[in-house]
Amino acid sequence: PIYTVPISPTRPAIPHGFYCALRANQRGGQSTRRAQERDTTAMAEGKLLLRSFVEVPRDSHFPIQNLPFGVFRRRGQPEGPPRPATAIGDFALDLAAVSAAGLFDGPLLSASPCFHQETLNMFLGLGRPAWKEARATLQKILSADEPVLRDNEALRKNCLVPMSDVEMLLPITVGDYTDFFCSVHHARNCGFIFRGPQTPVNPNWFHLPVGYHGRASSVIISGTDIIRPRGQGHPTGSSQPYFGPSQKLDFELEMAAIVGPGNELGKPIDIADAEDHIFGLVVMNDWSARDIQAWETIPLGPFLGKSFSTSVSPWIVTLDALKPFACEAPKQEPEPLPYLAEKNHINYDIPLEAWIKPKEQSDASIVTKTNFKHMYWTVTQQLAHHTVNGCNLRPGDMFATGTLSGPEPDSLGCLLEITWNGQKEISVGNSIRKFLQDGDEVILTACCKGEDYNVGFGTCTGKILPSLP
Amino acid sequence: PIYTVPISPTRPAIPHGFYCALRANQRGGQSTRRAQERDTTAMAEGKLLLRSFVEVPRDSHFPIQNLPFGVFRRRGQPEGPPRPATAIGDFALDLAAVSAAGLFDGPLLSASPCFHQETLNMFLGLGRPAWKEARATLQKILSADEPVLRDNEALRKNCLVPMSDVEMLLPITVGDYTDFFCSVHHARNCGFIFRGPQTPVNPNWFHLPVGYHGRASSVIISGTDIIRPRGQGHPTGSSQPYFGPSQKLDFELEMAAIVGPGNELGKPIDIADAEDHIFGLVVMNDWSARDIQAWETIPLGPFLGKSFSTSVSPWIVTLDALKPFACEAPKQEPEPLPYLAEKNHINYDIPLEAWIKPKEQSDASIVTKTNFKHMYWTVTQQLAHHTVNGCNLRPGDMFATGTLSGPEPDSLGCLLEITWNGQKEISVGNSIRKFLQDGDEVILTACCKGEDYNVGFGTCTGKILPSLP
Repeated sequence: PIYTVPISPTRPAIPHGFYCALRANQRGGQSTRRAQERDTTAMAEGKLLLRSFVEVPRDSHFPIQNLPFGVFRRRGQPEGPPRPATAIGDFALDLAAVSAAGLFDGPLLSASPCFHQETLNMFLGLGRPAWKEARATLQKILSADEPVLRDNEALRKNCLVPMSDVEMLLPITVGDYTDFFCSVHHARNCGFIFRGPQTPVNPNWFHLPVGYHGRASSVIISGTDIIRPRGQGHPTGSSQPYFGPSQKLDFELEMAAIVGPGNELGKPIDIADAEDHIFGLVVMNDWSARDIQAWETIPLGPFLGKSFSTSVSPWIVTLDALKPFACEAPKQEPEPLPYLAEKNHINYDIPLEAWIKPKEQSDASIVTKTNFKHMYWTVTQQLAHHTVNGCNLRPGDMFATGTLSGPEPDSLGCLLEITWNGQKEISVGNSIRKFLQDGDEVILTACCKGEDYNVGFGTCTGKILPSLP
Repeated sequence: PIYTVPISPTRPAIPHGFYCALRANQRGGQSTRRAQERDTTAMAEGKLLLRSFVEVPRDSHFPIQNLPFGVFRRRGQPEGPPRPATAIGDFALDLAAVSAAGLFDGPLLSASPCFHQETLNMFLGLGRPAWKEARATLQKILSADEPVLRDNEALRKNCLVPMSDVEMLLPITVGDYTDFFCSVHHARNCGFIFRGPQTPVNPNWFHLPVGYHGRASSVIISGTDIIRPRGQGHPTGSSQPYFGPSQKLDFELEMAAIVGPGNELGKPIDIADAEDHIFGLVVMNDWSARDIQAWETIPLGPFLGKSFSTSVSPWIVTLDALKPFACEAPKQEPEPLPYLAEKNHINYDIPLEAWIKPKEQSDASIVTKTNFKHMYWTVTQQLAHHTVNGCNLRPGDMFATGTLSGPEPDSLGCLLEITWNGQKEISVGNSIRKFLQDGDEVILTACCKGEDYNVGFGTCTGKILPSLP
């Protein structure tokens, strides 16, 4: 029998229209050859039948096959302390409580204080064997057949917290944050808009994953409001540059990899080992002020046009959970240099969407649908490139993909591309937009759709507040 | 009577030639009008006679007028724990020991644990009133007239550690590191070398302090070896890009400001308050691989050409100690926008030098002499610009000036400029150089020269090790 935890969970506050449309998408899901293969593999592994005693809605991003990691605190007066957690259906499972109950009984975690921390950094530093042990333990204690948690009401109430009662926090201390530029469609469109049709993609782009250092201090958790930044824009004629609130505020739909074990300064990570240094992925909004960016960017790259805020989704989905959704990455031409050549050249089939909910409207409207799988340089290539000069990574460092635009006109990952730098307007419900307006909420989401379950990322949201006077 | 602490200090290992030349420079020091004004002010403040009971050699960077802050540990088996310190002559004064002895008896520091930390971040976060209190206490207990430390042999032995017995550590946890580009001479030379004579300086440069995010994880303490980075360089014709050890390894002579109290995300720091957020300055070597940088940099700026290592000098010299060396900053034309306009538009008169000691030579040779005072955008303008978009700074963040080239041919701050991107050679002792070779040690130094005392930064050094095979 499937138990229902006797606490009434309610969903986090997301615009009604968003969920309606999300469900409609799922009803329309097609059975592809890849999905069939996946099911066969899953059957062989006995995973197809893996169910949790916690009731998981069919459209949930967080079935027992996912088990992402995050950090939460209980709402209320007083607020609870920050606690590592996994998500199961509409509940957060408190890993400090699970650990205190002695349920992490494997060799790597039974004596580890890693779940009694305020961030996941220590757990991330332990590496994949510990991550796999945690995942196996959690799948076991949450499964429908396992009584240890299912039949212990006091422990269940202590460990399982309805999502409506939790506040999600930034799950990691981000030492350094890097942003790559790995969608060729985005690179081509930006090059065309800013430099013209001659060489929209610079010659280096096909030889290395172009990237830049971002600002770590302003990486924030989904749900945090975004204050419209002020700054300088291009002068007109011989006047002073424009100064004031950004007039071209944009989102960028990205994903970011979270680093597990790092490397010593001067010791690059071989591409064959790169995957072992990546814990998982989050959805990221690389908020961008296009007018500030355009004026400041020559010759040293983006700075204040980006550093005012970068939002990430709260649950880190592990590469282990994403494995069933692995797919071939785009063929690379020219062939990468040996340090970037990989035997297992894969992306993941992760459908991504961006929605905008204008202030005066009750529903959000979808503005783009794209996919992580279009990315030209894989996350493992990004990591190998990042360290080839000896640069050291540390647990909790974050490196993002760049805007994940796809090849179709309706798969562009930011308004700069969608409205061609404000040259055309788009409809958002019964409003029109060239760039973001005050009060707009942007909702990014990502969800791998299997036949029988999703492996989703939840949402990455942020609402635009007016600039300071 | 001036006491000599009865322990034999020896100098840190610096090439012999370096000190010989340094002394010669000092003997040749001229009495300028500014220096005379300084002395008058100092006399009025009764500071001219301020002497320490610790013997301070006349050429020392660290008289009682300086009192920079750093973190050290005692050498030996076992090594001591990291401890905050100030420098006095050839000694480090252990601030944890001073604090434990109850000598920080002012209202802000008497109960503070800030000197019982492994970094200075907590002290930096306390702000200028606490910094001034610490400085006043240290000037008092180190002065020749004050018996509390002078006449207590046990306490003196516990607190004063010869520099030869200490290992200096990175004094701060760097949350984020930013690099500006604030010497117009450097900007013009780089623009000329890379983009030609048409518009060597991009139009935005005179309207804002151009900068970019750097890598925090690879900020290292002076004395750490530099492993020559590997990476990609421009392809020739239609072949693959070059891949291998950088063939154009360079130093960049910079200074960096260390942030004190930070600001909340979304709340810019007004330029009138900017100085209160800057604790002090260090000398910095922004090691650069010019071939990697040139190929990767379009369109997102420097990345792996910089992120392999950035060295900083161990002692943070406070703005309070630098005050006597304040001087007018260059006139700005066009006038800066209001958010960058400052009443007190000052730089500091800090002479800077770069020396190279080739592997086979016993002496270092000077390769450039420049000065911090040439900088076009001041550190307070840099800080105000950095936060105008709402970007948050945190205690211990670091922002650097960019290469501090001066107007004269012998005041260029990197080999890129000195050898005009390798088009000409320079003599270094009895060797010649276009860029750095394996075994070369680069020694940067900065020292404000008063009539009666120096306020110096010590050195920022690093030796090039061969690339990995």
